[in-house]
Amino acid sequence: MSVKEAGPVKPIRVALLGCGTVGTEVVRLLTDQAEDLTQRIGAPVELAGIAVRRPNKHREVPEHLLTTDAAALVKSDDVDVIVEVIGGIDPTRGLLLEALRNGKSVVTANKALLAEHGPDLFEAADASGADLYFEAAVAGAIPLLRPLRESLAGDRITRVMGIVNGTTNFILSAMDATGAGYNETLEEASRLGYAEADPTADVDGFDAASKAAILASLAFHTRVTASDVYREGIRAVSAADIQAAKGLGRTVKLLAICERVTSPSGQESVAVRVHPAMIPRTHPLASVNGAFNAVFVEADAAGEMMFYGQGAGGAPTASAVVGDLVAVARNMVASGHGPRESAYAALSAQPMGNTPTRYHISLDVADKPGVLSQVAAVFAEHDVSIAAVRQEGRIEDASLVIVTHAATDAALRSTVDKIGGLPVVRDVVSVMRVEGEE
Amino acid sequence: MSVKEAGPVKPIRVALLGCGTVGTEVVRLLTDQAEDLTQRIGAPVELAGIAVRRPNKHREVPEHLLTTDAAALVKSDDVDVIVEVIGGIDPTRGLLLEALRNGKSVVTANKALLAEHGPDLFEAADASGADLYFEAAVAGAIPLLRPLRESLAGDRITRVMGIVNGTTNFILSAMDATGAGYNETLEEASRLGYAEADPTADVDGFDAASKAAILASLAFHTRVTASDVYREGIRAVSAADIQAAKGLGRTVKLLAICERVTSPSGQESVAVRVHPAMIPRTHPLASVNGAFNAVFVEADAAGEMMFYGQGAGGAPTASAVVGDLVAVARNMVASGHGPRESAYAALSAQPMGNTPTRYHISLDVADKPGVLSQVAAVFAEHDVSIAAVRQEGRIEDASLVIVTHAATDAALRSTVDKIGGLPVVRDVVSVMRVEGEE
Repeated sequence: MSVKEAGPVKPIRVALLGCGTVGTEVVRLLTDQAEDLTQRIGAPVELAGIAVRRPNKHREVPEHLLTTDAAALVKSDDVDVIVEVIGGIDPTRGLLLEALRNGKSVVTANKALLAEHGPDLFEAADASGADLYFEAAVAGAIPLLRPLRESLAGDRITRVMGIVNGTTNFILSAMDATGAGYNETLEEASRLGYAEADPTADVDGFDAASKAAILASLAFHTRVTASDVYREGIRAVSAADIQAAKGLGRTVKLLAICERVTSPSGQESVAVRVHPAMIPRTHPLASVNGAFNAVFVEADAAGEMMFYGQGAGGAPTASAVVGDLVAVARNMVASGHGPRESAYAALSAQPMGNTPTRYHISLDVADKPGVLSQVAAVFAEHDVSIAAVRQEGRIEDASLVIVTHAATDAALRSTVDKIGGLPVVRDVVSVMRVEGEE
Repeated sequence: MSVKEAGPVKPIRVALLGCGTVGTEVVRLLTDQAEDLTQRIGAPVELAGIAVRRPNKHREVPEHLLTTDAAALVKSDDVDVIVEVIGGIDPTRGLLLEALRNGKSVVTANKALLAEHGPDLFEAADASGADLYFEAAVAGAIPLLRPLRESLAGDRITRVMGIVNGTTNFILSAMDATGAGYNETLEEASRLGYAEADPTADVDGFDAASKAAILASLAFHTRVTASDVYREGIRAVSAADIQAAKGLGRTVKLLAICERVTSPSGQESVAVRVHPAMIPRTHPLASVNGAFNAVFVEADAAGEMMFYGQGAGGAPTASAVVGDLVAVARNMVASGHGPRESAYAALSAQPMGNTPTRYHISLDVADKPGVLSQVAAVFAEHDVSIAAVRQEGRIEDASLVIVTHAATDAALRSTVDKIGGLPVVRDVVSVMRVEGEE
């Protein structure tokens, strides 16, 4: 113990907003580990209140703590820290801004709110000197944001790429294993509890895009909001896409990719995107199955790192929340504070059309002379260089698979559009970006 | 910026002790990233001095900063933070204790010193209110200690297992790939610069044992020193061991394993060990090759996590060092401090003999009736349960491979000793622990 911390210590008073799966686990950890947390922090942590919509529905937490008045908790002089696990934008945003303005530190798992209104929350926190921690907002229990915000603060991060949504990863893993189509697999995922009744946030990539915005903000010291993120979900991924990937030793994953991009003139910007992509089966992300998350981080001095673990679920998310709560409490005991928003680099967001990507294109073509030359001419016309071609004749027609070198996404799209209109091309079977290869 | 931090800020003055591969990279990062670091910290970082043995040998760092007087730097009023990359126990220990007593925070990559004298350093830090950070001491650039010390501070860690020494991993990877013996492969590793002229610290497991002690201390909130760690290096790993592992779909890795063990009476202790072990080729650690490190962490709420990256080298280690320096500097700007030693749990260290392990045993036996029953009787006598047996006849004799269930290491050793003395056993070809399987 430091000399500063001698003498009896004031308990840290915590109010919990929301008490669903994660909140219940947070209460359990705070209760079960009360003695350990006191030792680790240097002061006891006490629950001051739990705001819920229907108090009679929460029999697993202490009844006297339950209240429907979240607004009173964020104002209360008896509360030091707000832990928010309600989710959603409103009314959560107003509650957290009020809490931060009142000098109460906030621990939140709310990726959507951070990705949309992170700067407002940071400004409120910085103005009052309160802390804002949110490790649980991305990749559940995997310590990822603290490494980006703190461990790698002396390095220059160039790229973050990973699988950050468990629902879509479960669906794509299952499609790869069974060969079944998207709709059928989504139904199965819902039945097993891996997909919500309304799966939009997951399957359309909104959840992953929020996480990508948060990761890019921290990695590049730049404000990146959800609207800066190019987003494509997995609804359009077909059994034919999965089959095409398999034929080339690849598999399909929904990736969140945040890159530092330097223009030929030396101007830096950030490119942040979420879309399905084919990756080689030998790539470490290829073996990340089901509800697990994994994220690669590349930095100039540190090189390549990977973080892997459970990306969601009550207990893993609660672990991250309580870890943040310990950090906030330790900061209070030490009369210090955690890291502030770091957005000084203020890099611009590069539009997807300008971002270099690579495409895999699978075509059904007429089996006659001159087809390949016609198709290849379209690539040349758009200045897109071809990395590999595979043509196979069949009874009436032929399949033609093309993998490109890197070109701008806009050039690749125009190429695909034009090829789809060639009379010799009967069907564009599959078009997908390729990642994880040199 | 917080209101607290308004106005012109005092630079953070840093003295570097040592300027080898890592030190040179630290100077490079501090120079190249000076503007970024100022923004990230809220104050500029300035080098106040670099202590080296032979100043004329360091042409790549600013000459006016070089000094041979490390003792003066740790006392200087002009220095706020000491970054130590000299290594070794003495005189480093005295220098760092003096620095901490003088209220200077310390960032160090010195695993041997921390594993032997960590508690003394922590006590000196806590007494003066200085910070002590050492992310670079384990697994190079991989953010691992901060996650253990901070991110998982709200959880109960049960196990840490990983590959934390690049030299031995390079040698074992090469033996697995080529089938060559240990001595031959060590020579090749030395030639390629992957092993030191005196490889003792690496190949005898001292380096990994120091890291295991540090990991266990943080994971279990208990003082664990190098002498508490059971240690076996890789000198005795033979081509026959590697071959035996291959025959069972396994590979051999030098593992550092830190476990929380609960006795039948509910008494908790920690078991910390470093030894070669066979793991299944499908285990994620099996594909960690060459100089890379990877560490699995298991916690009650968070579940299983993995951290992967470059475990050594000048730039990766410097990345971790400068990340810690940013943390210390931010704490100074915020008038706070980082996490203190957390050793309240004070668990006892369990001797290796009592630790449950599993063995793989490969024998050359006489090919006649009754051999298996004689061998099996020895296992039964020591209360060791057999998980799998494979017997194959050859011209004159037979090979018998046995994999056990978990038993205490002492019982397993006694079993192997007794079996080696049976007249029907011609040779004990390979004995190795098995990990990474249920």
